[in-house]
Amino acid sequence: MNFEHHILSVEKALSTWEIPQDSKNLAEPIRYLLSIGGKRIRPVLTLLGHELFEGKAESVLSQALAVEVFHNFTLMHDDIMDNAPLRRGKQTVHEKWNINAAVLSGDGMMIQSYDLLLKNQEDKFVELFRCFNQTAWEVCVGQQMDMDFEKREDVSLDEYLEMIRLKTAVLLGCALKLGAIAAHASAVDQEHLRLFGEHVGLSFQLRDDYLDAYGDPEKFGKQVGGDILSDKKTYLYLHTANHEDESIPAELKALHGTNDNAHAKITSTLHLFSKAKADEVTLAKSEAYYTSALNHLNAIAVPEEKKMALRNLAAYLLERES
Amino acid sequence: MNFEHHILSVEKALSTWEIPQDSKNLAEPIRYLLSIGGKRIRPVLTLLGHELFEGKAESVLSQALAVEVFHNFTLMHDDIMDNAPLRRGKQTVHEKWNINAAVLSGDGMMIQSYDLLLKNQEDKFVELFRCFNQTAWEVCVGQQMDMDFEKREDVSLDEYLEMIRLKTAVLLGCALKLGAIAAHASAVDQEHLRLFGEHVGLSFQLRDDYLDAYGDPEKFGKQVGGDILSDKKTYLYLHTANHEDESIPAELKALHGTNDNAHAKITSTLHLFSKAKADEVTLAKSEAYYTSALNHLNAIAVPEEKKMALRNLAAYLLERES
Repeated sequence: MNFEHHILSVEKALSTWEIPQDSKNLAEPIRYLLSIGGKRIRPVLTLLGHELFEGKAESVLSQALAVEVFHNFTLMHDDIMDNAPLRRGKQTVHEKWNINAAVLSGDGMMIQSYDLLLKNQEDKFVELFRCFNQTAWEVCVGQQMDMDFEKREDVSLDEYLEMIRLKTAVLLGCALKLGAIAAHASAVDQEHLRLFGEHVGLSFQLRDDYLDAYGDPEKFGKQVGGDILSDKKTYLYLHTANHEDESIPAELKALHGTNDNAHAKITSTLHLFSKAKADEVTLAKSEAYYTSALNHLNAIAVPEEKKMALRNLAAYLLERES
Repeated sequence: MNFEHHILSVEKALSTWEIPQDSKNLAEPIRYLLSIGGKRIRPVLTLLGHELFEGKAESVLSQALAVEVFHNFTLMHDDIMDNAPLRRGKQTVHEKWNINAAVLSGDGMMIQSYDLLLKNQEDKFVELFRCFNQTAWEVCVGQQMDMDFEKREDVSLDEYLEMIRLKTAVLLGCALKLGAIAAHASAVDQEHLRLFGEHVGLSFQLRDDYLDAYGDPEKFGKQVGGDILSDKKTYLYLHTANHEDESIPAELKALHGTNDNAHAKITSTLHLFSKAKADEVTLAKSEAYYTSALNHLNAIAVPEEKKMALRNLAAYLLERES
């Protein structure tokens, strides 16, 4: 890893970032959510995206924070919508305070993220803003699709990929692109870098779907089988539900929504996933996005040694040898 | 009135405004809330603020919509927080759909308002953005103060004025200033125009407090006494609650929170308001802001005849002869 110093500078900048103090009750939930951790991958991407083109990381530190604050705003509101009691092992804002606090502090957080986006980058602001704001809308569309899918039985694999692209992957691409814009990178390089981030994000999310079902409980941070128990329509599930041998989807759907025997539900579902080769297909899809991400990184017109940090970060996220 | 044609052009622009159609369920509540009306005062202020300095209204039509869409975003989220079933006589979004839809469509609406702010005004965007974003934060702070006040018994009149300034008045000032910025007005004129709007807003809100208690039921759009029945800490209430003759605050607070006899509660509270001269004081305060607003308008360095439309709009809002 050669990006740890960036994580430290993001943490430091976040902890010294001054939320306007005109309302204690508005600022407290913001401060709380930012303080309970997170890997800080997104802001680090902005710093690395900037350094890739000879920029100095400090000059986009505010833009890096903008991305992290925006990301946490979406978590604050998503947790309301998902009725989630915990986030990173701590109480969510709507649990610790109430829904009104989470709605309003989330709004305030989003507004503050725009302020951070402008800081020290007035000259490039229109470009930065276009990237940021389009992504912000896409993240909302992704969240809406995710909620819509809960009520639908006919979700296709392509729709699922589009949902995770919008809900998760585009922000990684945007984080990198903001760094590139501020470094005056060419439009072609900006786009390669953005797609590198987006495809790393897609690869990561698909691998996360796989690990939720097949991961080593010791290594995987969440409860293995959690997606199955909560009837989440993951890539594994949707592949199996769309299998051509109709008995497989029928058995899968019979298990869906049942909750009397957790262990049996997980075991039976995993059996069907494997029968449909959902495990192999999901890993292969994740792999394909990883390869595509690296191809986009390779295509960027800067010397190979400048790319090492991003290569390492992608490998770290996907637990590969870099 | 010589601004009716502007209301029509705002209505037309709103009805033809294309919300990105990538998610039907995200866009529908936005379209719904914008379609159920509103006086469109804020966007008209942007158009008039622009024309005051020789600008052509069409060139800030998008900025005018930005203000109206932002305003409606705050309504969508405020209605969740206030648990309000109705808005302009129609179901609120969280009632018609659900809280999740109101949270997420509200977020999307805010994002779209920023997009509108940029359109056709790239050159002036940094300035427009600074005004808009600072105001956005202030509106959140105002809403937070309003919620905080519900739980406090020691709210001062100055705190109340600051709350209504932030929650309501600053957006009127910002709407005007956006028009002035785009017309290259001087910083001094921008500030006079902004304060004209802010003070009209304060005057309006205080008069609204008065009318809620003393208005003619036939003319006043809402239920007279509504604020009293819902224990709202209005200017009238706070003036009376802070009266030096301690028996008056004591009697007032005894009525607060009771709900067995609506008619008696209104009558007794009005009696105390009058005894404390809260009616006179509130109207005088509203009048003082109106005078101050006109002074700011007078101070702007453009010919008197250019100011007529704004003078008329202020008179219309406060039901005066212009």
